[in-house]
Amino acid sequence: MKFMRFTIQGEKKKGVLEDGEVKEISGEVFKAWGYTGETYATEEIEWLAPLEPNQVIGIGANYVAEVDDLTEKGPDMPVFFFKPNSSVVGPSDAIQVPETIDEVKFESELAVVIGKEASGLKEEEVQNHIFGYTIGNDVTAPQYFHENGHWTLGKSFDTFTPLGPVVETEFDHKTAVVEAVHNGERKQSSSTNLMIVTIERMISYLSHVMTLQPGDVILTGSPVGAEFLKEKDEIECHIDGIGSLKNLVCKAKQKTTVS
Amino acid sequence: MKFMRFTIQGEKKKGVLEDGEVKEISGEVFKAWGYTGETYATEEIEWLAPLEPNQVIGIGANYVAEVDDLTEKGPDMPVFFFKPNSSVVGPSDAIQVPETIDEVKFESELAVVIGKEASGLKEEEVQNHIFGYTIGNDVTAPQYFHENGHWTLGKSFDTFTPLGPVVETEFDHKTAVVEAVHNGERKQSSSTNLMIVTIERMISYLSHVMTLQPGDVILTGSPVGAEFLKEKDEIECHIDGIGSLKNLVCKAKQKTTVS
Repeated sequence: MKFMRFTIQGEKKKGVLEDGEVKEISGEVFKAWGYTGETYATEEIEWLAPLEPNQVIGIGANYVAEVDDLTEKGPDMPVFFFKPNSSVVGPSDAIQVPETIDEVKFESELAVVIGKEASGLKEEEVQNHIFGYTIGNDVTAPQYFHENGHWTLGKSFDTFTPLGPVVETEFDHKTAVVEAVHNGERKQSSSTNLMIVTIERMISYLSHVMTLQPGDVILTGSPVGAEFLKEKDEIECHIDGIGSLKNLVCKAKQKTTVS
Repeated sequence: MKFMRFTIQGEKKKGVLEDGEVKEISGEVFKAWGYTGETYATEEIEWLAPLEPNQVIGIGANYVAEVDDLTEKGPDMPVFFFKPNSSVVGPSDAIQVPETIDEVKFESELAVVIGKEASGLKEEEVQNHIFGYTIGNDVTAPQYFHENGHWTLGKSFDTFTPLGPVVETEFDHKTAVVEAVHNGERKQSSSTNLMIVTIERMISYLSHVMTLQPGDVILTGSPVGAEFLKEKDEIECHIDGIGSLKNLVCKAKQKTTVS
């Protein structure tokens, strides 16, 4: 099932994408929801991020170039980071480059949406707590990474987390291919079997630290090949079975320079 | 005005502390609220964290030992980090030490609560966007800091962010003294004039990166003197005019070891 959010005539609504049509729903997606009976053509709506996340968590450097590069054990302690909800935008919204810099990096990623509170999970219990999957572009300004290693600022600018287009609940994450096409040129294309820390292990690990909540979005890392984007570029992040994010890049205008 | 949240007979409520009594309120604290007419004695309620934050942001290493150590300019790029909302507990809840380690660090901090959306603020505009002030204990397990510098895991465990007891809207942050008393012994006691990055500068800086929202809580850094806590310790974080957090330390029990 493909859950999504959209606006029509300035009103925010939720829906399910079925047979190329948007069927409006009401209620809470993680609890109880139902069809309202309204149906819209995809041409008449504007797509929003498919959920308002409870929080967004990412994992650092999580893909190898080829299967032979995987070690049996993986890292003892993966690198995790948060991105603020204020950075989330929809699947066709503009990515804004901060006015203090000239370019930002794209990172196409499979994103997991948690559906059920999760604490202290074993790896084999993880799947029961996953609601579905979407695509995230973990846009990053490494110019704002701190010299002592902290990534927070560089990943937190407004518009730095395009999500969507849908949350697909019927999806086999083990055979997915994560792609990015930059101005028409394929730059990333990796199977999720090149992940260093598997989805089961990363969510088990996180759930031993913090109680995960419905609506938590976990960006599962980006394949090799991420590059920089500048004004007027187009970046498409694609995963078969979920769809595409297609975001144009523009310069942020509304803010004064950081003092 | 002292806003707070509490439970009575298992029900969560909001209130204002006035003349030693809790006056129940309804509505949204950042928008429109009113008194319900119900009043409770502080003895009959259980205190909750005074708000459910939109998000919690902290700043690293932000106090000097004495005024002479302050430089005119301060750092070009402060260190910021997020703490998950799942780490927030009330002013008298237990702090749980993860079962994989023996001790955690306390850090008594003045916490700013944002009341109005904030983007691209000048320093002189910051005060208009602050709703009030509370106390935060930025509990930290440096054993979970990543060797490459990332603090996320070490600051994210459940119960690692006691907040409260109230959000005080009438408070002069420039003359505040931030204190911590560990098992009856004073360990931290610094005026906020020992902050390296002032509250005005840190919120201006953050607002140029991300749009801050009502309910965002910003932990403004901890004075020198933070130490480790172990099972059965008591840690009191105190700021005159706001009150005290008093948290006992226990061992986390409900989770299996991180694999």
